[in-house]
Amino acid sequence: MKTIRIGMIGLGTVGGGTAAMLEKNRGFINKTANANIVMDKILVRDINKERPRVNPDLLKLLTDNPDDIFLNEDIDIIVEVMGGVELALTYVKKALNLKKHIVTANKDMMAVHANELFDLAEKNGALLLFEASVCAAIPIVEVLKKSLAGNKISRILGILNGTTNYILSKMDSEGIEYSNALQDAMDKGFAESNPESDVMGYDSGRKLAILAAIAYNMRVEYDDVFIEGITKITADDISYASELGYRIKLIADAKYIDGGVKVNVNPVFMPETHPLAKVDGIYNAVYIESDMAGETMLYGKGAGAEATASAVVGDIIAIAKDICENSIANTGYTLFNDRKILGHKNAVSKFYLRLDVRESPGVLSKIAGVLGDHEVSIYSVVQAKAYAESAEIAIITHGVVEENMQNALNEIKNLKIVNEISSVIRVEDK
Amino acid sequence: MKTIRIGMIGLGTVGGGTAAMLEKNRGFINKTANANIVMDKILVRDINKERPRVNPDLLKLLTDNPDDIFLNEDIDIIVEVMGGVELALTYVKKALNLKKHIVTANKDMMAVHANELFDLAEKNGALLLFEASVCAAIPIVEVLKKSLAGNKISRILGILNGTTNYILSKMDSEGIEYSNALQDAMDKGFAESNPESDVMGYDSGRKLAILAAIAYNMRVEYDDVFIEGITKITADDISYASELGYRIKLIADAKYIDGGVKVNVNPVFMPETHPLAKVDGIYNAVYIESDMAGETMLYGKGAGAEATASAVVGDIIAIAKDICENSIANTGYTLFNDRKILGHKNAVSKFYLRLDVRESPGVLSKIAGVLGDHEVSIYSVVQAKAYAESAEIAIITHGVVEENMQNALNEIKNLKIVNEISSVIRVEDK
Repeated sequence: MKTIRIGMIGLGTVGGGTAAMLEKNRGFINKTANANIVMDKILVRDINKERPRVNPDLLKLLTDNPDDIFLNEDIDIIVEVMGGVELALTYVKKALNLKKHIVTANKDMMAVHANELFDLAEKNGALLLFEASVCAAIPIVEVLKKSLAGNKISRILGILNGTTNYILSKMDSEGIEYSNALQDAMDKGFAESNPESDVMGYDSGRKLAILAAIAYNMRVEYDDVFIEGITKITADDISYASELGYRIKLIADAKYIDGGVKVNVNPVFMPETHPLAKVDGIYNAVYIESDMAGETMLYGKGAGAEATASAVVGDIIAIAKDICENSIANTGYTLFNDRKILGHKNAVSKFYLRLDVRESPGVLSKIAGVLGDHEVSIYSVVQAKAYAESAEIAIITHGVVEENMQNALNEIKNLKIVNEISSVIRVEDK
Repeated sequence: MKTIRIGMIGLGTVGGGTAAMLEKNRGFINKTANANIVMDKILVRDINKERPRVNPDLLKLLTDNPDDIFLNEDIDIIVEVMGGVELALTYVKKALNLKKHIVTANKDMMAVHANELFDLAEKNGALLLFEASVCAAIPIVEVLKKSLAGNKISRILGILNGTTNYILSKMDSEGIEYSNALQDAMDKGFAESNPESDVMGYDSGRKLAILAAIAYNMRVEYDDVFIEGITKITADDISYASELGYRIKLIADAKYIDGGVKVNVNPVFMPETHPLAKVDGIYNAVYIESDMAGETMLYGKGAGAEATASAVVGDIIAIAKDICENSIANTGYTLFNDRKILGHKNAVSKFYLRLDVRESPGVLSKIAGVLGDHEVSIYSVVQAKAYAESAEIAIITHGVVEENMQNALNEIKNLKIVNEISSVIRVEDK
């Protein structure tokens, strides 16, 4: 049995989980890989940092000298779990140029630099696997690249962030406001102390860029993604959604239209019968529409040390097997389609609007009039709650062009009878 | 670009779908595989049979002479979509001995002969891929073999048959009886005119044997699976389940306990919060519990020409890539664990019982007494409907040993006050 040596960069949550998993399941992992997989060296910034929860045997492998990994000819696979973009990118490029195989969990890097990294990997005959970079334990990269390879994919809809799904699920099940649900997520360790990247949708956007590129064989990058977070969602919105047979989810949506790709992340009214509407709590799911397989969905844990390690180790085993059987095949995604990213302003969506208006006669007809002027037609007025001096109006529109909607909203915002446009949320067809 | 030639055995629903898919998506399939994939010959029993829906170009490829495929040196991959066991097995063995790679959709064959076929494939350096044999478009074989390879799997729960899931969903949503739901499934083409293999659970049992073998690296065969179908489920059972917060599903369950594997297919009261409880209609899903990835679920179409073709073509592309890159790795599952199949009689389950009893005083205490004698304790008596001369009692038990339950049932059956044991259904923990 051949020995395959790993050099790991980083020993944070994911690195620790990966090392622990390789140790815990060593027996059958080695049988499955038909190789003896050994952690050889771990590159960290500060070897003297206190690491009370790390197995003492691992501490012996620490080094702060990159040469111990890159120039070590015994090392076959470099596992990059340090995170961040610039230094990680430098290290990964260096490793590929030295013909080392790479396993990475780094979505920030892959969402922007996948293209150049794959070129580099291919040029050097090295493998670059990255299952852990999108939704941790959900094997979506493998499934898109292999299992569905013969399908024309038309749409990917995903709940790609566990923090926001937890918050929205909590708001829904307990009728509480966003800030309370966020606090609860923080208390339980499901949200970071600075939750911006999650709640603003940035994290979902990075993952979506990676998935869209694989699914549509086209260069898609983070900056292409239109992003709106969940911070403006209120308990009222969730309650209106529920009355109407919807659940509000932060949806990452990559759609193929006439040779182009439209990518956006925003809250959506999902019909409660849709499989994604039933995904609750910290779980993630990716729903794929394709011409032959039809509707497919993968569900699982999209974050956490163990779930991410599961994906990293799956990739390590795959490479170890390939090395042992002398069958290193190119595994990069083949971005053979011309890049065509569709703008957002011509997109057609249904909308839910919630408006805080002055209580006065004719207010609804006034608003309907402005909407009509911009070719926005109303599907239904959901409810009009009246208070002492104000009223709340919730409206669902028919499918309308984004630009028209925005123009209408700009005009409505300035109407004297309108105190505030409280919510604007896209609605998925039932 | 290298040309990869396919010889296909069978031109039924799946064969037709596969040929159509290769034709329809030829452009990007070839780009993805980096190969020119060509259907070369199709072996059928009767080349003169009317095939009005088949593309005339394909009809030119028909042959009834096996030598045209097996002895054709140009053919790289043999796609077996003829179905049945004996002749298919003969053909697949012959092909492997001739070092041809195999893609098969044949669950009947794989559920019984996987072991010997993998040995043969390995001996001949040929690949044997079989994603289509379990749940069609759901990429469960790939995910178990690769993505989750580093995980210790503890349980697989699956809805592996679309016909039965459609029937149960229909009974649930419309409150109708089994026979009406079955008729509806037949009318819609979701059930065959002889639905035995589906409704008796045999089809699910075959798929489960294949999945359990992969997940637990152990030889598991169809005969190991304890099987009960759905034919005895009534609208009353479904309604009781619903009142209690459950949905009745036909569940294929492969559990790892102390080095052994217990495999069974039977109706189960699934808690309505469980992801599988939310899988409706013809859809299939496989839910996996593992030590690092945690809970993972794959959902999709488990049958049908197009969904099955999706899996067949995925496997064809994988082999074509490997041939072109000269990287044929062994892809058989490695059954390195000793075979230990656990019997059913020591299994512990909760049960739901529905009894038709005579209306007489003390009937419940009598039944409770018999259950108690066999160490079956009652968790709750759900309802006791009274009619003119009879009554219906529904009981949920605590977890009990199967053998004790069966002994208790044998005794209860013979009580004078009991007209009939109407239902005995296992209950999954909430």
